Amino acid sequence: MSLSTLSATYLPVVEAELQHQVERLNEPLYAPFHEMLTYHMGWTGEGAGPEATGKRIRPLLVLLTCDASKGDWLCATPAAAAIELIHNFSLVHDDIQDNSDKRRGRPTVWKIWGMPIGINVGDALFVIAHQALFDLSKHHSPETVLQAGRIFHQACLDLTKGQYLDLSYETRTDLQESDYWAMIAGKTAALISASTQIGALLGGSSPDLQEAYRDFGHYLGLAFQIQDDILGIWGNEALTGKSAASDLLEGKKSLPVLYGLRHGGLFAKRWLEGPIYPEEVAALAEELAREGARLKAQEAADRMTELALQSLRRADPQGEAGEALFELAGRLLGRQS
Amino acid sequence: MSLSTLSATYLPVVEAELQHQVERLNEPLYAPFHEMLTYHMGWTGEGAGPEATGKRIRPLLVLLTCDASKGDWLCATPAAAAIELIHNFSLVHDDIQDNSDKRRGRPTVWKIWGMPIGINVGDALFVIAHQALFDLSKHHSPETVLQAGRIFHQACLDLTKGQYLDLSYETRTDLQESDYWAMIAGKTAALISASTQIGALLGGSSPDLQEAYRDFGHYLGLAFQIQDDILGIWGNEALTGKSAASDLLEGKKSLPVLYGLRHGGLFAKRWLEGPIYPEEVAALAEELAREGARLKAQEAADRMTELALQSLRRADPQGEAGEALFELAGRLLGRQS
Repeated sequence: MSLSTLSATYLPVVEAELQHQVERLNEPLYAPFHEMLTYHMGWTGEGAGPEATGKRIRPLLVLLTCDASKGDWLCATPAAAAIELIHNFSLVHDDIQDNSDKRRGRPTVWKIWGMPIGINVGDALFVIAHQALFDLSKHHSPETVLQAGRIFHQACLDLTKGQYLDLSYETRTDLQESDYWAMIAGKTAALISASTQIGALLGGSSPDLQEAYRDFGHYLGLAFQIQDDILGIWGNEALTGKSAASDLLEGKKSLPVLYGLRHGGLFAKRWLEGPIYPEEVAALAEELAREGARLKAQEAADRMTELALQSLRRADPQGEAGEALFELAGRLLGRQS
Repeated sequence: MSLSTLSATYLPVVEAELQHQVERLNEPLYAPFHEMLTYHMGWTGEGAGPEATGKRIRPLLVLLTCDASKGDWLCATPAAAAIELIHNFSLVHDDIQDNSDKRRGRPTVWKIWGMPIGINVGDALFVIAHQALFDLSKHHSPETVLQAGRIFHQACLDLTKGQYLDLSYETRTDLQESDYWAMIAGKTAALISASTQIGALLGGSSPDLQEAYRDFGHYLGLAFQIQDDILGIWGNEALTGKSAASDLLEGKKSLPVLYGLRHGGLFAKRWLEGPIYPEEVAALAEELAREGARLKAQEAADRMTELALQSLRRADPQGEAGEALFELAGRLLGRQS
């Protein structure tokens, strides 16, 4: 209840702030360049609309955390926009690196305008993200802006580190579970923990509580990624084998796959033989579940959820936003899509 | 004289600062990633050494400008490193976007490790550049760091705008001279004017003098790029036609080429027919010069040089560093390679 009410209040403000930031490129000579960014953000072009924007979970977490720290969430919107822009920068580059044709059901930027332009669109989102963050100085002291910037930069560096691991894993067959945790800590958890930590900082939380919020974001990110891994194999779309959403088709080294490889049964035997075909996906997913990988992945997700909730209780979030944070954590983790 | 003495003092400090910044990635799990950056920076791998690092002109300008503003240049080294890292980020992505195999005589990052990794190496340099800039807060007030950051961000955005224009020009045949100026203002002048402006800011110059230094960098960057264009067609390497250094072979829309196209003579006729072959390069360069393009480009470079020197005089640079700035401007513009 609190979550949907607060989302309905926050998200239009976030969207307006994002548009305001991207507006920096809106000059006659650069109009087509500006449009490439607004297309990716889901505002223009074919298929534009709420389905194309993504869920904006990271900015929501920034504002909820700020609000639950008894800060003025409105003054944190530049940071919320900054983090969402970094997330989108990483998606634009990811799509090139993974050779992905579609994102949120629409052709990817590089697929429409080519790889060189795609790289440049990602770079522009990255720069604008940093400019957005600096707009915090309208409402916060220079010291606070610099502190938020340091957290932000570290998350960006962690993103590239996670991406390095992900890319380097493609050719490796000796991956351990610890390799997986290092990768998703960078690729998924870093930006989510930066969201909650910066929200807490801007909300005026003490250093101890900022740390608790950061841990909350970290474990939430890890749990979220494992749920994503589970849905990528046993979600409805994945199971049909017809959707590119199936992680088995893509050969993605997700947590259940690592469990299956360690188990060394029929799944591992087939996996090591080479690419999986759509017609085998359903049977192979079933085999992987039979070998215990689904259950173990769910247990890992539950462990991370428990740690996230422990951290959140330690952060002692206040008011309606505090309730909404508990609700968001629960909803993210119970999600079916 | 002052220039070579000061360079010999500054540049080892810049190099150490750059290494210190890139060191952020030097952890066991990320050692190969770290090495990709040190390779690009010219410190490791085959062909490492002074030839592979580039001239470090931008950091030199930051420190000279700071020094000539009677500031402590040593306290500006994080900014000098930050700008050089941004320059190198743009080179790594440029090489992918232009499909270039070689950079400073060595295989490019993406050529060795592949395109996806190449994008990620550029992204990491981009992040570390921003972290380097924040290290200014060891020596400067938070307000000054934020002000330097704003100049820095705007230069980064201008870089992506220049890159957008450059990429969009590839398929256009109707380019005007004004299109050229807009492109090089972003691709070359933005980072050089940020170097001199930030140097002046950190050196404690008044806003008026900061503006004069910024203008100096802007016109210096424009003049530098036109000289580069001239060398790219009539430099020794370019004229042999065997080197990839020939802008005519690459079809680069440089200022002399735009003049030739506007002239509408034999050069334009041949250019519009399609790609130039190595065996025609020398004759075509001669034809382009005969049509007056070389002279006109040289005149444009001279005009920009004059504006740069006017701005520098307005900035009233002090001491040995001040003399060195005049010397550097002169040397950059008279260069043969």
